[in-house]
Amino acid sequence: LRSGFGETVFCQGKPDPYLVEIYKRFYDRDGEVLGTRASKEQFELVRSIVPEVQYDPISGILKVERPGKEKKGCIAVCTGGTADIPVAEEAAQTAEYFGCYVDRIYDVGVAGIHRLLSQRERIAKANCIIAVAGMEGALGTVIAGLAESPVIAVPTSVGYGASFHGLSALLTMLNSCANGISVVNIDNGYGAGYLATQINRLAVK
Amino acid sequence: LRSGFGETVFCQGKPDPYLVEIYKRFYDRDGEVLGTRASKEQFELVRSIVPEVQYDPISGILKVERPGKEKKGCIAVCTGGTADIPVAEEAAQTAEYFGCYVDRIYDVGVAGIHRLLSQRERIAKANCIIAVAGMEGALGTVIAGLAESPVIAVPTSVGYGASFHGLSALLTMLNSCANGISVVNIDNGYGAGYLATQINRLAVK
Amino acid sequence: LRSGFGETVFCQGKPDPYLVEIYKRFYDRDGEVLGTRASKEQFELVRSIVPEVQYDPISGILKVERPGKEKKGCIAVCTGGTADIPVAEEAAQTAEYFGCYVDRIYDVGVAGIHRLLSQRERIAKANCIIAVAGMEGALGTVIAGLAESPVIAVPTSVGYGASFHGLSALLTMLNSCANGISVVNIDNGYGAGYLATQINRLAVK
Amino acid sequence: LRSGFGETVFCQGKPDPYLVEIYKRFYDRDGEVLGTRASKEQFELVRSIVPEVQYDPISGILKVERPGKEKKGCIAVCTGGTADIPVAEEAAQTAEYFGCYVDRIYDVGVAGIHRLLSQRERIAKANCIIAVAGMEGALGTVIAGLAESPVIAVPTSVGYGASFHGLSALLTMLNSCANGISVVNIDNGYGAGYLATQINRLAVK
Amino acid sequence: LRSGFGETVFCQGKPDPYLVEIYKRFYDRDGEVLGTRASKEQFELVRSIVPEVQYDPISGILKVERPGKEKKGCIAVCTGGTADIPVAEEAAQTAEYFGCYVDRIYDVGVAGIHRLLSQRERIAKANCIIAVAGMEGALGTVIAGLAESPVIAVPTSVGYGASFHGLSALLTMLNSCANGISVVNIDNGYGAGYLATQINRLAVK
Amino acid sequence: LRSGFGETVFCQGKPDPYLVEIYKRFYDRDGEVLGTRASKEQFELVRSIVPEVQYDPISGILKVERPGKEKKGCIAVCTGGTADIPVAEEAAQTAEYFGCYVDRIYDVGVAGIHRLLSQRERIAKANCIIAVAGMEGALGTVIAGLAESPVIAVPTSVGYGASFHGLSALLTMLNSCANGISVVNIDNGYGAGYLATQINRLAVK
Amino acid sequence: LRSGFGETVFCQGKPDPYLVEIYKRFYDRDGEVLGTRASKEQFELVRSIVPEVQYDPISGILKVERPGKEKKGCIAVCTGGTADIPVAEEAAQTAEYFGCYVDRIYDVGVAGIHRLLSQRERIAKANCIIAVAGMEGALGTVIAGLAESPVIAVPTSVGYGASFHGLSALLTMLNSCANGISVVNIDNGYGAGYLATQINRLAVK
Amino acid sequence: LRSGFGETVFCQGKPDPYLVEIYKRFYDRDGEVLGTRASKEQFELVRSIVPEVQYDPISGILKVERPGKEKKGCIAVCTGGTADIPVAEEAAQTAEYFGCYVDRIYDVGVAGIHRLLSQRERIAKANCIIAVAGMEGALGTVIAGLAESPVIAVPTSVGYGASFHGLSALLTMLNSCANGISVVNIDNGYGAGYLATQINRLAVK
Ligand SMILES: Nc1ncnc2c1ncn2[C@@H]1O[C@H](COP(=O)(O)O)[C@@H](O)[C@H]1O
Ligand SMILES: Nc1ncnc2c1ncn2[C@@H]1O[C@H](COP(=O)(O)O)[C@@H](O)[C@H]1O
Ligand SMILES: Nc1ncnc2c1ncn2[C@@H]1O[C@H](COP(=O)(O)O)[C@@H](O)[C@H]1O
Ligand SMILES: Nc1ncnc2c1ncn2[C@@H]1O[C@H](COP(=O)(O)O)[C@@H](O)[C@H]1O
Ligand SMILES: [Mg+2]
Ligand SMILES: [Mg+2]
Ligand SMILES: [Mg+2]
Ligand SMILES: [Mg+2]
Ligand SMILES: [Mg+2]
Ligand SMILES: [Mg+2]
Ligand SMILES: [Mg+2]
Ligand SMILES: [Mg+2]
Repeated sequence: LRSGFGETVFCQGKPDPYLVEIYKRFYDRDGEVLGTRASKEQFELVRSIVPEVQYDPISGILKVERPGKEKKGCIAVCTGGTADIPVAEEAAQTAEYFGCYVDRIYDVGVAGIHRLLSQRERIAKANCIIAVAGMEGALGTVIAGLAESPVIAVPTSVGYGASFHGLSALLTMLNSCANGISVVNIDNGYGAGYLATQINRLAVK
Repeated sequence: LRSGFGETVFCQGKPDPYLVEIYKRFYDRDGEVLGTRASKEQFELVRSIVPEVQYDPISGILKVERPGKEKKGCIAVCTGGTADIPVAEEAAQTAEYFGCYVDRIYDVGVAGIHRLLSQRERIAKANCIIAVAGMEGALGTVIAGLAESPVIAVPTSVGYGASFHGLSALLTMLNSCANGISVVNIDNGYGAGYLATQINRLAVK
Repeated sequence: LRSGFGETVFCQGKPDPYLVEIYKRFYDRDGEVLGTRASKEQFELVRSIVPEVQYDPISGILKVERPGKEKKGCIAVCTGGTADIPVAEEAAQTAEYFGCYVDRIYDVGVAGIHRLLSQRERIAKANCIIAVAGMEGALGTVIAGLAESPVIAVPTSVGYGASFHGLSALLTMLNSCANGISVVNIDNGYGAGYLATQINRLAVK
Repeated sequence: LRSGFGETVFCQGKPDPYLVEIYKRFYDRDGEVLGTRASKEQFELVRSIVPEVQYDPISGILKVERPGKEKKGCIAVCTGGTADIPVAEEAAQTAEYFGCYVDRIYDVGVAGIHRLLSQRERIAKANCIIAVAGMEGALGTVIAGLAESPVIAVPTSVGYGASFHGLSALLTMLNSCANGISVVNIDNGYGAGYLATQINRLAVK
Repeated sequence: LRSGFGETVFCQGKPDPYLVEIYKRFYDRDGEVLGTRASKEQFELVRSIVPEVQYDPISGILKVERPGKEKKGCIAVCTGGTADIPVAEEAAQTAEYFGCYVDRIYDVGVAGIHRLLSQRERIAKANCIIAVAGMEGALGTVIAGLAESPVIAVPTSVGYGASFHGLSALLTMLNSCANGISVVNIDNGYGAGYLATQINRLAVK
Repeated sequence: LRSGFGETVFCQGKPDPYLVEIYKRFYDRDGEVLGTRASKEQFELVRSIVPEVQYDPISGILKVERPGKEKKGCIAVCTGGTADIPVAEEAAQTAEYFGCYVDRIYDVGVAGIHRLLSQRERIAKANCIIAVAGMEGALGTVIAGLAESPVIAVPTSVGYGASFHGLSALLTMLNSCANGISVVNIDNGYGAGYLATQINRLAVK
Repeated sequence: LRSGFGETVFCQGKPDPYLVEIYKRFYDRDGEVLGTRASKEQFELVRSIVPEVQYDPISGILKVERPGKEKKGCIAVCTGGTADIPVAEEAAQTAEYFGCYVDRIYDVGVAGIHRLLSQRERIAKANCIIAVAGMEGALGTVIAGLAESPVIAVPTSVGYGASFHGLSALLTMLNSCANGISVVNIDNGYGAGYLATQINRLAVK
Repeated sequence: LRSGFGETVFCQGKPDPYLVEIYKRFYDRDGEVLGTRASKEQFELVRSIVPEVQYDPISGILKVERPGKEKKGCIAVCTGGTADIPVAEEAAQTAEYFGCYVDRIYDVGVAGIHRLLSQRERIAKANCIIAVAGMEGALGTVIAGLAESPVIAVPTSVGYGASFHGLSALLTMLNSCANGISVVNIDNGYGAGYLATQINRLAVK
């Protein structure tokens, strides 16, 4: 196993017996577990075996976390709109679970550019910035143009019609004209939070 | 024929005899003609029959224009980068040909947002704004968020890889989170210039 | 905020507490609110807080509107079939909310061209025409060829098979051979209504 | 072999020795041959072996045809624009080669609907109508709505940007709201001409 | 209205009041009505107003038909598998409603070519053949190679994975190497039945 | 290195110095080399260093082969048309190079099903059958339905329009209704020849 | 019927009466039947007629199998993750039904390459290897590079976002850089199991 | 301008006068310039004005670089094959230009996994790893599973057929099952090199 990262359980689609077995095994071994994309039913199932498990219905995070973690460095998590918050929370809570300090800057989409500009100082303090956006997905580019730290862009499936379930935002982000930006899968808050943690650790170590 | 708009010749792909015949016929009837997407070879061919024809190799515009037109109202034509200028010029020269005053604001892409913000006053004066951009194509959204006039977004085929010849910019623009924006075909500067002229005339009439 | 346009709430997908909080805040501040893409459940939720709210189940419009608005100018809203009416109503009611007079011309698809031709005079009176169509989506082109005002084409997701949820109509509209036409996202009646309002105001100001 | 149809050679991409061998063999056997999608180089190659071969550079048809064929029935071949003529000629000359009378009605695209309406009587006389159009491809629908005979729609690769090499016109035609219309491959004039011949023969037999 | 074809109601997605109003109006005027893509709920709704209406749950046909129609000519309707039968029945019952004799030849897919070959004589008797197939969609090509009459290919959405809801079968049919074949929209049995009727009438008139 | 297979050089796109260096190295080590997708220029370049190299311009195979190989077992290589022969030859010559006996059965496409049926006995003798086809790509399905041995289907980029450079044939083959068929990349004759060799060896060992 | 393979019933989407009739007919004739993609409802329906039928809810296999089959040769079935197991079981149970010995090697995805490497010896013993993977789908390539036997890659629809329901894994597998690999449809465990049986029989016969 | 990064000129597609003017301006101001995607003709043009410019035809890098830069930290640049080297060199030389030490590990594709495994120690020393691969694109996943540092995956357009000009590799990388990986545009070596520099600086600062 990689040093400094506990095991994660990707809950979505796991049949019940598999889910319970894996979750319990990691819990017994490590004393804490991070689960992602869990449904309310899965929460209740796991709780019947691991009573201290906690569930956040917005992000789908299902975790047991050892208390008293010191949160180091700084990761900024930004969203274009409120509908992107579930994905942003998956990213933010993942990074916090792995020991990072997270600054949440939500609802600063580029259609109202001054909301974003008014947050420049907070963004400038982060070692890594996660930009979460659906529909046109332009948030990452504008942030990457303003900030000096690496930007991880997360397209979301928020939208309708020609958003094609996140494809539009994904293509926008891949074609960014800005320097210092890369992209993860549509709705992959976990992946962004993990990668941001790696980068933040390089900065604070 | 629609009042107030002369006939236009879409030159690209027209076999030589068709092109010459059509261009000459409109010229004889109206005394001026607007041609679009013409190649240098087509320019030379048409010039052998209509010696006063003028050609702009950047935009591909091939025109005979009656002198002394009064330019009314104001249309702003903005681009994200320098590679978008050919499409922007097709739009701008189309609008000028149809009697509009055009303000060119080039190379103000959103990866360097302050270049765009420094042009806010010029943009605010236009009755209609044409936003030309390739790759991620986010220019139109930011402008539509800043300005009160209608924005016509023109995706360009500028880019490589996942730009898919303009598809990325097109989807971005269709999914814009801003109010007051619509889209024309990839690289369709002419269509944007024509539509902007209609809107500008409503404002100045 | 942009002058002359109240704030709009895009209801679809908003978690309940967010929706209620935002709707109430705008209502308290402005005395009127326009909500779009609301479900019946969202209507009932909002009504429990803002009892005067009104809901149209066809268009999904959820609004409180100040009475006695003068409706200025003229926008024509046309559809190809009856299944396109929900999107058309989103457009029409948006434009009315923002103070425009709207003329509805429904079920005039191009497969029966005489229904459309018999409405030419009504179409000719509009400062801006919204053409709403699914499946093959050719309505906008024929109207743009007949009328002198700008046409905003709205593709709808009506259809089956190779309509690919509105993609077919979208591509048709982007490739229109007519002059004076632009396109918004699939099913985006609101966007069309907003843009048409901007254009109509330029004409009547 | 099917009764009443000679053998056809699809020339495009055939290596030179194959092309010559096949063309000569059919010629020797039948005394006439229809070749399609031939280049000028292929014409010269075949002519060196079969001197009486004739080539039309617009349609790419490379044929030896027995003189004095009676042309029966009536097929109408319509196009949206002049750029669609090469595909239309492939269809028309195929149908003529197989013994049909063909009425050409070119450049009657739906962006100027009155050009099409003024040809209604000619269209009404045909046993089968071939509608050739690129870009938005709406011609077939309007014709199928006007006429009582079957319509074969041929999308062309004419266009740019979001026409995606004929995909837009193809989808339009597949989603036609009109009754009595079917579609062949992009640029497949030959296939339309063959099928129209079968239908025309049913009518005149 | 076109001579010899009654009005059809496309039921899918029509709001209840619209459906009832239209269905009743046509019934009162013509004494018979053909409805397509109706659900069981729509059947019950219409029956409460038009008690003599009949419903076929396989094809979704909802009709009132005048008795004693003479069935003329011959249309063959073939399917690749049993799952294609609903679409085939939409085609067959449409053609019968419009006065054609229909020969059903089901489950003769090309993966077991002898089932198809053993039906050659029945196929040869038809004036027009409808080939209905999903997944790989090759049925139409093999039939068109065997038969002399026109073939209308109907791709179905039957399949999974890379069938992409009928796209695979659609592309197969558009790219057919056989002569005398054209294509309608995915699952469009109605369109095939209508067009086949037009062709069959040309043959029997 | 895998037992029984020499090293292969994929020539396409290799810069000249890399190509020469790799080709020479394998030649010196093994005394024979198989190169694929080589151009005529690459042939001449390699010949200047390895004079005994042989080039087949149809398949693009550039090889030095040790004489006197015994050809074991039997692989049938079938094509739909003559334009598929280059890909078929890449497959056939690859299998021969690796020591298989190959039976070539070309131009047996399903639009003329009797050509294929007349070859049933040859096909039945093969341990593995390679079915090469473009456009609609249905050859593999019909063969897999007739034969008892595994079928490897190779889609080709032969075609135009909605063949989308081999996508249509690829999807057809992936959706085959027949048992005992799998697919390789578009135009990947080499991959099919290699895999068929593995299967043939299992049968003859 | 092909020698050595009983008839299979593809249950998904079959209307109830068809399913029961076909299943019963095969059962009466052969004494055993293999059904695939059956739902729990279909199981209960068939059991009411054929009481000895057995159902596996993971794979959807619904079978009556004659006891005492000897299992010959060896097929390895590998998966990238636990979510791919349903498809893998369809493949494995199909191969066992047709008389093959199957070795299951699950959850050996390439993101943790040592799990796979530790299974090299088991993989090396198989006559044919089935590699089942979703998301990035790289399992087949790594196995084909390690093993000498043919690899059948099965993409699964496991994943989210840009996995596009299995398209990503499918394309990965088609573009494999390894030798000796071919691909079946997304989620097509049955097809892989059947083909692997054919190959295994060649090896053991 | 962002601290610590000089200005870059994206040369591809820039008209000659624009290119020369921009390149000269940056050179005069900064004394060094990095140009990317330059052709040989552009090199000669720029050299006529800036004689000390240097050109690498493999990567297309056209630069003037101040001598004596200290190279800090460590970035590993890995490729799957030799055809990916041009993109890898764009990444590597960009990172070196911005002051990073780069370790090149080429031709370690996953079809021969031991080549990659034998390089584990070098990979483990890097602060950031760039994984460049076309076709199936699985390199990044395997590296991310082995290494603890962040991985930037660069899909390349290397391949043919269903690689769809890099789309296959792009999707593979976006769907990676490994932790700590993100993606840039197809062939975007520059973007990867820039981002890796940012990350490397965080580690060494
Ligand atoms: N939300 C997520 N999205 C993508 N990958 C995830 C997510 N959550 C966890 N993972 C990955 O999935 C792995 C666990 O997969 P599994 O063994 O199927 O539970 C973890 O080690 C992570 O690499
Ligand atoms: N199943 C069907 N698929 C496609 N078009 C149909 C179908 N059934 C009826 N139609 C067409 O739809 C028209 C009626 O549409 P509507 O006015 O929406 O009821 C008819 O005149 C037919 O042209
Ligand atoms: N899971 C499966 N996926 C694809 N094809 C299958 C599957 N199961 C059975 N088949 C094929 O479907 C045929 C039966 O189809 P049907 O006649 O519709 O029951 C069998 O002979 C197999 O060729
Ligand atoms: N190879 C490349 N790919 C993508 N972006 C690049 C590349 N090279 C330079 N850039 C970006 O392009 C900008 C310069 O663009 P331009 O102003 O058009 O010369 C640089 O500041 C970078 O952000
Ligand atoms: Mg940055
Ligand atoms: Mg605006
Ligand atoms: Mg107009
Ligand atoms: Mg008609
Ligand atoms: Mg035929
Ligand atoms: Mg077989
Ligand atoms: Mg292998
Ligand atoms: Mg890692």
